[in-house]
Amino acid sequence: MISVEQALQTILNTAQNFGVEKIPFIQSVGRILKEDIVADRDFPPFNRVSMDGIAIDFNAFKNGQRTFKIEGIQPAGSKQITLQDSENCIEVMTGAVLPKNANSVIRYEDLEINNGFARIIPEGISDAQNVHPKGKDRKQGDVLIQQNKLISAAEIGVLATVGKSKVKVAKQPKILIISTGDELVGVDETPLEHQIRRSNVFTLVSLLERLNIPSETAHITDDKPVLKQKIATYLQEYDVLLFSGAVSKGKFDFLPQVFEELQVEKLFHKITQRPGKPFFYGKTDTCNVFGFPGNPISTFVNCLAYFYPWYYKSVGIEVKEETAILTEDVVFKPNLTYFLQVKLSYKFGHLVATPIKGNGSGDLASLVNADAFIQLPKGETEFKKGENFPVIRYS
Amino acid sequence: MISVEQALQTILNTAQNFGVEKIPFIQSVGRILKEDIVADRDFPPFNRVSMDGIAIDFNAFKNGQRTFKIEGIQPAGSKQITLQDSENCIEVMTGAVLPKNANSVIRYEDLEINNGFARIIPEGISDAQNVHPKGKDRKQGDVLIQQNKLISAAEIGVLATVGKSKVKVAKQPKILIISTGDELVGVDETPLEHQIRRSNVFTLVSLLERLNIPSETAHITDDKPVLKQKIATYLQEYDVLLFSGAVSKGKFDFLPQVFEELQVEKLFHKITQRPGKPFFYGKTDTCNVFGFPGNPISTFVNCLAYFYPWYYKSVGIEVKEETAILTEDVVFKPNLTYFLQVKLSYKFGHLVATPIKGNGSGDLASLVNADAFIQLPKGETEFKKGENFPVIRYS
Repeated sequence: MISVEQALQTILNTAQNFGVEKIPFIQSVGRILKEDIVADRDFPPFNRVSMDGIAIDFNAFKNGQRTFKIEGIQPAGSKQITLQDSENCIEVMTGAVLPKNANSVIRYEDLEINNGFARIIPEGISDAQNVHPKGKDRKQGDVLIQQNKLISAAEIGVLATVGKSKVKVAKQPKILIISTGDELVGVDETPLEHQIRRSNVFTLVSLLERLNIPSETAHITDDKPVLKQKIATYLQEYDVLLFSGAVSKGKFDFLPQVFEELQVEKLFHKITQRPGKPFFYGKTDTCNVFGFPGNPISTFVNCLAYFYPWYYKSVGIEVKEETAILTEDVVFKPNLTYFLQVKLSYKFGHLVATPIKGNGSGDLASLVNADAFIQLPKGETEFKKGENFPVIRYS
Repeated sequence: MISVEQALQTILNTAQNFGVEKIPFIQSVGRILKEDIVADRDFPPFNRVSMDGIAIDFNAFKNGQRTFKIEGIQPAGSKQITLQDSENCIEVMTGAVLPKNANSVIRYEDLEINNGFARIIPEGISDAQNVHPKGKDRKQGDVLIQQNKLISAAEIGVLATVGKSKVKVAKQPKILIISTGDELVGVDETPLEHQIRRSNVFTLVSLLERLNIPSETAHITDDKPVLKQKIATYLQEYDVLLFSGAVSKGKFDFLPQVFEELQVEKLFHKITQRPGKPFFYGKTDTCNVFGFPGNPISTFVNCLAYFYPWYYKSVGIEVKEETAILTEDVVFKPNLTYFLQVKLSYKFGHLVATPIKGNGSGDLASLVNADAFIQLPKGETEFKKGENFPVIRYS
């Protein structure tokens, strides 16, 4: 039996690099960037007009001129034209190149336009106003996004801008989720009195989907030779196996023994925590084996508390640790780390956690009334209102 | 020009119900549940053994008996068997039905088993221990999940458990994202000096994907008859049109005029905010038209600040408002609501927001260095370190 901290460290030490792949940028949301994204040109790439109006030579204004003949028009997306006569002006549109020989833009709101002449009304015109100079935001060659960033909508915009139609991202591990337990029937079936429907595998599928990891599922009956034969194959075919159930002390909890016979190196079995104590973790040279206890909440919390950090480390991202403030006193006597279900809310910039009472690790429905766990440390029994603790969100 | 609050209220007033559809439960993550989910049986559905060990008649123990002959075994997933002799015991596994005539379970850790007999070591055995009584968590007919909940992994587990292989969810609106602007070229193309690549449409696609809304994209050149003809068709075919650009004062900003000619009812044009001021919002009987300004950050913030709440209201979910605490003083003089880019972090249960300096609404790359906006109200110019303000996260 090891502590939560030791278990986590052991698991993080087995993080693996699954390599990189190139995918279309528009499919890369939720994936981890594996190349630095560099400006392919200056941004803006030209002296960019930032208001609709007219462009002038500021010297003319400085010399007292207020009315300018409109010599031409420079729309966005057109080649740069030239202001031929420095006493004239050119109509310009937001996003256009500033015409050659012009250097200031006066917006329509500050103009009177009549018969092809624009008159500037206010006096407070300054040199280079309403022009966004070439290269002001970023220079060609600047790193715009560093690798190891989780790609979201903001990154998608940058990837499009620099022409990265394909982008290098971390490959996802190939994962199989396996349920065991002869009491389980399919979701479509009507269980007999002593049976229940499979649910943990689907919960795990959804928790992986949250990380954009596709996964497959399988069910194996509680029959040792069958388990052994199937798992031997799966260990070859997948990077990660997630089991739910059959790791405790029951007569048909064959997994620890099967793992041993298949040379899965046991790294630990059982953690001083509630729920989720009889968690088995092991590995072969090519496969990481997470043996979650079969109770729904045990599987759920262990996936979040151990598989998620293992994945984050494997793909190279850092995740901010969050803490939340307890809204009421909690007493927990066992000498175990307690993952307490809570409902989070926000009050004046504080994240507060209200405990949700469930009926223990079998009460799946209580998960929907909460939205996170807070992690109360082992070795203490009283946790006071107002104290803050690490929080693991799940919705 | 209207305020942010008026604009938001106007938009919320146009929220629409797009009906419901039934989809496979495993595809429902991120969708909005549109039926109450009810327990199809008691949970647990039988008196459930919650530890591996033996089941006994507690009366025998109370009468002083400590050694019990093992009469049989009750695995999980097997029909309930009967304890034939109340001085015997039955080996039972976690998840099994408690055998008939038995009422207490003693775990293996508290037993010595030899030659078919189990001896109970400790004295502190209590009636009904390690048994999870039928119906203790939930009764048949109890509502386990109320409708209008966003479905995540926890809900998936409950849906599986009660056999909801298909589930009723809110239909998503049918959305087209349209870019305009002749300066735009494709992501795969190499822009000429006066051109830039399309990026806002892809950012919007990703922002919708975050809400599990699929969308289509189109580009229309800055040509009024073409715009008018195409938009006339799109207004018929889609529930929502999201435009980026062509809503300002430029000579080629045809959209407001085209909308008017196509009988799109203008609800507002321009909001007292920065960035994103020249936002147009209108509707027909069947289509909602969001005309976002073309600058990348304007489009981005307006999608989050207006489209998202419109969507949430349309599908019937409530979203918790979050606030964050400023880490430094901010001065903003214009009489506008200021959406300031910030980087969020967590400190002792506090959510703190550090301003990220960008180069204005054109500086798309600055979005990747921040992860949220905080909303600083109009009418004030100094915002102090330690004050808290509403926050809109985007990554």
